[in-house]
Formats: sequence, C-alpha cells, structure tokens
Amino acid sequence: MSLIVQKYGGTSVGSVSRIKAVAEKVAAKHRAGDKIVVAVSAMSGETNRLIELAKEIHEQPNLREMDVLVSTGEQVTIALLCMALEAEGVSARSYTGGQVRILTDNAHGKARIKEIDGHRIHGDLDAGRVVVVAGFQGIDDEGNITTLGRGGSDTTAVALAAALKADECQIYTDVDGVYTTDPRVVAEARRLDKITFEEMLEMASQGSKILQIRSVEFAGKYNVPLRVMSSFEDGPGTLISLEDNDQMEEPVVSGIAFNRDEAKLTIRGIPDQPGVAYKVLGAISEANIEIDVIVQNVAKDNSATITFTVHRNDLKQASELLEQIASDLGALEVTSDNRIVKISIVGVGMRSHAGVAAKMFEALAAEGINIQLITTSEIKITVVIEERYLELAVRSLHSAFGLEQ
Amino acid sequence: MSLIVQKYGGTSVGSVSRIKAVAEKVAAKHRAGDKIVVAVSAMSGETNRLIELAKEIHEQPNLREMDVLVSTGEQVTIALLCMALEAEGVSARSYTGGQVRILTDNAHGKARIKEIDGHRIHGDLDAGRVVVVAGFQGIDDEGNITTLGRGGSDTTAVALAAALKADECQIYTDVDGVYTTDPRVVAEARRLDKITFEEMLEMASQGSKILQIRSVEFAGKYNVPLRVMSSFEDGPGTLISLEDNDQMEEPVVSGIAFNRDEAKLTIRGIPDQPGVAYKVLGAISEANIEIDVIVQNVAKDNSATITFTVHRNDLKQASELLEQIASDLGALEVTSDNRIVKISIVGVGMRSHAGVAAKMFEALAAEGINIQLITTSEIKITVVIEERYLELAVRSLHSAFGLEQ
Repeated sequence: MSLIVQKYGGTSVGSVSRIKAVAEKVAAKHRAGDKIVVAVSAMSGETNRLIELAKEIHEQPNLREMDVLVSTGEQVTIALLCMALEAEGVSARSYTGGQVRILTDNAHGKARIKEIDGHRIHGDLDAGRVVVVAGFQGIDDEGNITTLGRGGSDTTAVALAAALKADECQIYTDVDGVYTTDPRVVAEARRLDKITFEEMLEMASQGSKILQIRSVEFAGKYNVPLRVMSSFEDGPGTLISLEDNDQMEEPVVSGIAFNRDEAKLTIRGIPDQPGVAYKVLGAISEANIEIDVIVQNVAKDNSATITFTVHRNDLKQASELLEQIASDLGALEVTSDNRIVKISIVGVGMRSHAGVAAKMFEALAAEGINIQLITTSEIKITVVIEERYLELAVRSLHSAFGLEQ
Repeated sequence: MSLIVQKYGGTSVGSVSRIKAVAEKVAAKHRAGDKIVVAVSAMSGETNRLIELAKEIHEQPNLREMDVLVSTGEQVTIALLCMALEAEGVSARSYTGGQVRILTDNAHGKARIKEIDGHRIHGDLDAGRVVVVAGFQGIDDEGNITTLGRGGSDTTAVALAAALKADECQIYTDVDGVYTTDPRVVAEARRLDKITFEEMLEMASQGSKILQIRSVEFAGKYNVPLRVMSSFEDGPGTLISLEDNDQMEEPVVSGIAFNRDEAKLTIRGIPDQPGVAYKVLGAISEANIEIDVIVQNVAKDNSATITFTVHRNDLKQASELLEQIASDLGALEVTSDNRIVKISIVGVGMRSHAGVAAKMFEALAAEGINIQLITTSEIKITVVIEERYLELAVRSLHSAFGLEQ
C-alpha cells in the first residue's frame, strides 16, 4: 500500500466529463489499495475569466483581493471532484488551502509555502477517504488567502507529498512523460523512463514547459520522487528522482532543450574596468527585464564586449536602455539580433565524461552551423545559434549523442 | 458616526457595473464618516450555475461538498467589491464566512449561526477600512464550510449587525421599502416609514417576499433595527424595529398581505373524538407537505369538519392522502379547491383596538365577498376567499383601514 499524491491540471479537469474521467482514474487507484491525495487546478479558462472580471473593475486590482478571487477557481474543482468520486462509490473529502493549513508567506500572488499540517489529511486517509486539496493556494499567518502564482498547483502537490512523506508525487499533464527533446522537432525523440532532478531543472529552465521549475526544486530539496504522466492515456510516464549511483553506465546526455523566445544584445568597445558589467546589466535588471545567457570577453585593445540574451518581448526596451548606457560609457556600438535560438544538451553523465562539449561542437560544425555564444555548467552546455538552423541542430545533436537509442 | 451593516443581494451585484454602483454608494457613506460593514450575495445566476455543474456530476451531490462549491459565489463578489471600493479610493478588506469565524452548526445547506467573532472586523473598521463579508456562509466547529441556505445573506447581515452592535442593518433590494400592500394590486399602496418586527414577520409569512423570515426573527430577537432600501434609487426605505411605545396614536392596520399559492382541502363527517385532528394532519405533515391555515369545527350531529390549506403544488398529493385517511376514518367526504386566496390584515394596533375583525368582515360583505375561512392571531386576521375576488378585496380593505393615508 502506497501513499500517492496526484496532481491534475486545468485541462485535465476542464469540463464535467474530464472531472468524471479523473474520478475514475483516482477511484481505480484507491480500490487497488493505495492511499490517494489529489491536488487540482481550476477548470481551464476559469482563472482567466476571474482575472478578466477583476480587470474590468480595477486596472491594478488589490493583490490580497485578487487571491480571494482567483482561489475560488480551485475551490470549485475540489468540490466537483469529490462529488464525482462519491458517484464512483469512493468516499472523499475536499480541503481549501486554508482548511488544510498550507501555511505560506504573505506575498500575494506569488506566495511560498512554509509549512503544511498533514494531521487532518492522514486522519481522512486512515478512514479510507480520498483527500482532494485545492492547488495553488494557501493561507498566511493572519489567515489571509494567498496564491502561489500560476502553475503553482504542481508545487502544492510536491509540498503535500513532502509533508505527508508520500511514496510518489504524480503530475498528470497532457504529455506522457519527459522526452529526449521536442518530438515535433525530432521524430525519433524518445520518452525517458527516468531523469534526475538536476537534469529536469536544466531542461525546464531551457524551455521544456512540462513542469514548473519551483516544483522540481522543491521535489529535489525534499527528495520526493516525481512522476510526469498523461491524464489521457495509460503509461509509466517519466520518473524524476535523485541520481541513481548504482547505475553502472549512465547516458552522457539525457536530453536536448531549446528556446526560441530569446533575443541577443551586444555592446562593444566598452572600457574593460571593474564595475562595467554591473553598469551594463544592472540597468537592464532594474527595468525588470530578465537576462539569461551572459558572455563577456576582452578584445586586443583591452576594450570589452558583453553579449546577453533577453526575452524577445523585452528586446525593444532593452535595446533603448543599452543605447543609453553605451553613450554614458562611451562604448563603440550596440547590436541586437532576435533571430537566434538557444540550444542546450543536458545530462548528469557529463560530470564524468570528458569531450562532451567537443562532440557537440563537432556535430554542429559538420552541419555548417556557426556557434555565436557558448556557456557551460556542470551538467549542461548551451549554445546560441541562428534561428533557421534550430531543427537541423537539434536533430544532429539528438543523433550524435545516440538519444534515439 | 454610526456603525452600519449593509446587505446587497444577487441582483444588486449582478454585473461589474452593478458592483461599481454599490461601491459608489458604500464609498459615499464611508466618506460621510460612518463605519460600514457590507454583506453580499453571489452575483445573480452564479449560484444556479454552480448547482447545475454539481447536478451534472451527481444527482444528489454530497452536501458538504455542495457548500464548498456554492460558497465560492459570494467569495467572488467580496473580492470584486473590495477592488471596486479601492477604485473609489476607499480602503477595504474582504472576509469569507470562515475567515471572520461565522460559526454555525454543521447542517450543510441550512446551517444556523451560533456565534460571530467581531474582533477582526472592529480592528479593520478602527483602521478606517470598509469590511466586506461573504453572505450566506459560515464554518462549523471542525472548520468545514457551511451555507445558511438560499437567501441566507440577509441572516448574515443581521447576525453581523447583532454581533458588532451596529446601529442599523440596511437590506438593499429591488424595492424601495415595505408597502401597505402590493402596489401592483392597489395603486394607492403606500410605502411604510416604519413597521414592527412582529408585523414584518406576519407580512413575510403571508407572502411578502422582501425579506427572509429568519432574518426578521433574528433581528427581532437581538433588537437590530432593520431597514429595507432600494439598491437602485435613493430614499429612506422602511425601518423595521421594536414597537415604539411612545407613539400616541398607532395605526390599527399597517398592511395587507395576500397569497395566491394556496389551495384548500376539507374533510367532512369525521367522528369528533380526541386524536382525529392528529390522524388527519399528521399524515399530511409526514409526507413533508406544509400545512398553513387550519380550521376545525363540529356539526350538529357531532361529526367534525377539518379544513386546511396547502401549497398548490402539493394539492394533488395531499388530496390522495386525504382520501385514504377519509376511508380509514369512515369520513363522509373530501373536497378540494385551488381557486382560493388568503388575505391578511396585519397591525400591532389591533391589540388595543376592538372591532377590527368586524370592520374587515363588513368591508368584504359590502363587496358581496363570501368568507370561507377565518383565523386570527393577536396582530393579524386572515380570511380565505374565492380567488377572483382578490383584487377587489384587497382594494376595499386598503381603503376601509385608511392605508392610503
């Protein structure tokens, strides 16, 4: 008998018939003898409907009240799912974030979980009930309703699994697992049976949108085995867990992630002196523009060049800021390019294997693809290339590292 | 500076523009220096939408989960109203029934309020905030969400006013006060400036649908002055309060209520012996049919006749039951009539005035209207007459008692 926390997102509970299908799935697990806790999102579209109502009333609605408003979305789902479970003959009980005391800080709209009281849930499980908890929401020290920010239901599920010491946290989505790369780009892309937290984090931060980064971090921190599964078809999914040291032969590269949403900015001919990187990048950050890859190097004349990437939507604003900075610093020129993509190969196996970078660059060179930027971390190598080479690059790397098996 | 509790029903908050209008009204009162607590219903249509969702999932949804579901309706309204108040420059804070600890019993769907903790609300009021509370909902000893049943927002408002020792509880509706009778029947019907709790109860139970009976009982019990006002136009409304003993001259009759929804059943020729009324009426009650007026008298041959009224929708079932009872008791006959109406004159002044009944019967006789049944209470006289005489009877009584002033 296992204790399983399952999470179903908005699409999985997007209609009455979908909710009934989820109830069937949960009931089957429950009848098989497992203890089940379910975390759910709002029915798809509901959160946006509520936000629209708020925007009609106030351009910048009060954040505390926004949380009171949008948290009703999940509250509707928990009630309906419990009713559907009872229709399946399964005893069930729903809880809002506040009722089960998912204690958070008071950062409305992006609160962080501090503590969960598992006492009441264990009582229900011991009484043979399925427990259904509203995802994405909690309560602060003073009893105010908080939300964890969009997609926060994944985090709720992982936090519940950690607090309840669950055997596994299963995240049901519209894909049947984590793939070596996007199957729409590489037909041979293969579902991974398992992947480590670290690898998943790198994949997620590189544009793989299956899981919220925060929930993966959380799962890694509390060592909660996380399984990504499909709501719509049966299958083992992908298990995300700690590195398995017993495994003799680890694949060098687990997956290839890419991101088309970035643009590149370069400032050339700036005096190479302490504080220059801060002057350039600090001003961009202060404008709330997120900076991703950063590369700096120094030319023969001792002037520095800094290149970095931002989200394409931020390119115009970032360019204007950078022109201003360039003129302040007496820099030579500012250039920008929004026809670039970022590609990363990810794998814990890189740690113990030399020559992975060389193999990556070789594969790209063989296709005549020029590399504009390179950054590396312990388990990831990222390159920025021209956008038009994206598919070619991903396919050649997928094949070079034998990911199709 | 007064402490006022206001209640706005579903129609008054039925759209974004209506909510903004309510916010304007509340903001004006707040700026005038009053401390304001607002209780609100769900936006009109919302509760029904949620109930429909539940019915699609389960014919008889779990009552606990039903309360979790429908209580989201008011939660949406409190958040939107607070946002609208902030847009008016008024600081506001919303609370669900659970957050403000409206403690109820655990009768889901028809819970009764046991206690309200006014501490937090007083804190907000002292800090200059308007407090917006979700009507119709509470929380039981174990932290489960409960609802007070439909229309329960009036009760929430009165209970809040009692707990906070408010100066007045204002119920905003789609009418501008309590009238001497239905203005659609008597053009001369006049808005009453004031009426007693007792009179309002009698009016309400006789078909005047302005206020929930429970909320009037509650207001009377805790002596909370209640004012019925229009959401859509300005005006003093009608104040419902304790009898004003200082008033020298009290009108004998305050209003005329009537009800077209009833039907009359008569069972004749039953042996006049102890327990017979119970045998007849007990069986009807057991079938969950509500009985209203009951009249019994004894004929010369010592056989009894019992006449009573039920809701027209229950007439068929009640008739069938009564036929069975008649055959069991060896009664003479059962007759029924659904073309009747009930008319009541109501007024605390009746207590100290003789001849009110005689005046009523005289007025009806002058119009040639036959009275089928009569019942009386201390402050009310009710007659049942043929339905076709309804308008004529109400108009002649309205005039006979000088209600047009």
